[in-house]
Amino acid sequence: MISDQNIAPHLNTTLHEPLEHLEKHLLGKQAKIEYWLRNQWHNTKIPFYTSVDLRNAGFKLAPIDTNLFPAGFNNLNLATLPLCVQAVQSAIERLKETAYKILLIAENNTRNLYYLESLAALQNILQQAGYKVRIGSLLPDLHEPLTINLQSTKLTLEPIIKKNHCISVEGFVPCIILLNNDLSLGSPSIFEDVYQTIIPPLSSGWATRLKSTHFTHYHKVAQEFAEQIDIDSWLIEPLFRNCGKLNFMKNEGYECLADNVDAILNNIQRKYNEYDVPHKPFVIIKADAGSYGMGVMTVHDADEILSLNRKQRTRMSKTKEGKPISQVILQEGVYTFETWGNDEAVAEPVIYMIDHFVVGGFYRVHTKRGINENLNAPGMQFEPLACINSCVTPDNRQAPNAYPNRFYAYGVIARLALLAATRELNCNT
Amino acid sequence: MISDQNIAPHLNTTLHEPLEHLEKHLLGKQAKIEYWLRNQWHNTKIPFYTSVDLRNAGFKLAPIDTNLFPAGFNNLNLATLPLCVQAVQSAIERLKETAYKILLIAENNTRNLYYLESLAALQNILQQAGYKVRIGSLLPDLHEPLTINLQSTKLTLEPIIKKNHCISVEGFVPCIILLNNDLSLGSPSIFEDVYQTIIPPLSSGWATRLKSTHFTHYHKVAQEFAEQIDIDSWLIEPLFRNCGKLNFMKNEGYECLADNVDAILNNIQRKYNEYDVPHKPFVIIKADAGSYGMGVMTVHDADEILSLNRKQRTRMSKTKEGKPISQVILQEGVYTFETWGNDEAVAEPVIYMIDHFVVGGFYRVHTKRGINENLNAPGMQFEPLACINSCVTPDNRQAPNAYPNRFYAYGVIARLALLAATRELNCNT
Repeated sequence: MISDQNIAPHLNTTLHEPLEHLEKHLLGKQAKIEYWLRNQWHNTKIPFYTSVDLRNAGFKLAPIDTNLFPAGFNNLNLATLPLCVQAVQSAIERLKETAYKILLIAENNTRNLYYLESLAALQNILQQAGYKVRIGSLLPDLHEPLTINLQSTKLTLEPIIKKNHCISVEGFVPCIILLNNDLSLGSPSIFEDVYQTIIPPLSSGWATRLKSTHFTHYHKVAQEFAEQIDIDSWLIEPLFRNCGKLNFMKNEGYECLADNVDAILNNIQRKYNEYDVPHKPFVIIKADAGSYGMGVMTVHDADEILSLNRKQRTRMSKTKEGKPISQVILQEGVYTFETWGNDEAVAEPVIYMIDHFVVGGFYRVHTKRGINENLNAPGMQFEPLACINSCVTPDNRQAPNAYPNRFYAYGVIARLALLAATRELNCNT
Repeated sequence: MISDQNIAPHLNTTLHEPLEHLEKHLLGKQAKIEYWLRNQWHNTKIPFYTSVDLRNAGFKLAPIDTNLFPAGFNNLNLATLPLCVQAVQSAIERLKETAYKILLIAENNTRNLYYLESLAALQNILQQAGYKVRIGSLLPDLHEPLTINLQSTKLTLEPIIKKNHCISVEGFVPCIILLNNDLSLGSPSIFEDVYQTIIPPLSSGWATRLKSTHFTHYHKVAQEFAEQIDIDSWLIEPLFRNCGKLNFMKNEGYECLADNVDAILNNIQRKYNEYDVPHKPFVIIKADAGSYGMGVMTVHDADEILSLNRKQRTRMSKTKEGKPISQVILQEGVYTFETWGNDEAVAEPVIYMIDHFVVGGFYRVHTKRGINENLNAPGMQFEPLACINSCVTPDNRQAPNAYPNRFYAYGVIARLALLAATRELNCNT
């Protein structure tokens, strides 16, 4: 094949021994890995689309969040468009042979232009795949179509109509309702008893989904996979714990939280000792049903929990759309040692999948955040994965940590997270 | 999405009115076309891979040959690799969930380095899709593995072993046998009563397949499709006829041939008159079961048939591997008005599909051939389609004859040829 290698990522990464071994391992066992993965998808309902946040610490590579209502399609490299289109065709073909019209259900935030650009990019992918696509909004005060001028195009949000168990927008009755709204505040009653196919299923929204359930599944997946390729599963999973009910504003449930932080820090330190990792363990506390990077904090010591100031507690008390946080997951903090550009901004890869196909990704980059912090925060930027081929097509002739091969590792770990989400959905529905 | 438009094809095309209308039509009806196509694939066995030679005359766009054992994978743009990989995964998944090992059966010509480069590229695609792949050869005098050094890589051909209804190469029992040998000389007895899956089916080889059968199916497909989008099917199909038995060396069957040439030339002229096409009609005579561009001639007048010289007759008497030609197809010659580069070399697009996905293509370019001649001949060169996205993703914001949109039209017509081949195989098997 003829190459056009005109784009090279300018990314400075410090890779340590175990991960390079891991990448070598993944490359060496590619056929076995793909075979194993192929058999995992058998007879399962795979989420329609998924994005996975990864952290590459050099000594370990792990998913830290799995999003079943991904935004950010506008940040993908244009070169990934055909791959997205083909994957959509495969996914919908398997779902419903005769589908023709798709209604995309948007998030309610009409002022977030980045989100709307993502929505437009997603609409374009679905249209290129050969579907008629319109966008429905759940906004209660939207009574007629609202057209918004974006930088790239125009986008029209339309009020949803329900009649005879059937969802539509004016003059457009879809075969498939595709949710791009994560249902943080619960499944809207308008979707009850709807006869059309709704994907992803309503039960996968953040009203019912819990990160701790996902990572329970991920832990099992990681163990099974690690056994297949004979590695320590810790190299590809973050340790985690969850707590019972708590209330940040009322200081309730803090003892349990502090104890668990302590326990998890000890467990991380034990692994750091085992692998001679010279860094300080840390824990990420997240809303167990949180999204949009809200309700996330970094903790290095259990004492920090007991001395949270009012501002910190307020920030941890609510997530998207003001939804109160009453349950958290404590996740092993995974350092990211990937940096982007000359100013060495901290970066983490986000991998996109449609059905079980890796279709692209980008780096989430933040110049104001540290290597032990949540990067999904205001001020973040996005750098599309340049060699998009790479997530799909490793190159055995290059070194294990060469871009194509590092990205292949990302594609594998992201698919493990997808597999966990698949199991999660197949239990829930 | 972020664009990297760093490659632009330098291609000079004269587009005339009807085709521009056709392209406009195809673009305007994209959702309907894709919907119609999707429903055509339902419950059919689609050929594993297909390449289609197209000719773009400006006033019409038609397939002239459909290859079910494509070579030329080395001529695809590297950017298409992920698309090929994803399509292979979809195709094999549908075929046989648990496949792990693939044996690729090569053509016998070990001196054609271009072919071997294609074979290596194909092996790479299958490997990237996550399969173990080795290459078996039908060469009768191959008794041990033969490793050939190519420009890009090394390739090993291995003798095939048959034992207990099972084909293998030394130490490697495949689940799937993928033929890349077009079986011109007949289906080898070694494949009889084999329990493994053989794709494409043995019956699709050139020992049994006839171009005239294919184009009979294509004619029906073109009519159905043309009706869907309300155009004259002649704009997308070459007229054709076939003759009974003939023998070029013994001058047998020439009258029938001359009569049919006459009839088809008259039919073309009628259509040229209808559309005010100022060109001279011509007919291509081809071996009905020919491949590798052998046994092909251009005729402008029935008299040319009766006055063929010995050299011309010899050339028309045999096709690949010395297989005698006893049956021909007479196909409306479709001018190509596409030229490549500063020297205005004559060019025709070749579109590649895996399963029903368009995965790439290239221009076959010939500096020594005319716009009314077969370009599949020694001296041809290949120029990968630069905007490979384009076959899959048209751009409604650009003019109908802009590259992305012209290529979308190519992708549609190529898939109509694939549909004809699909119906052909589903009748034959």
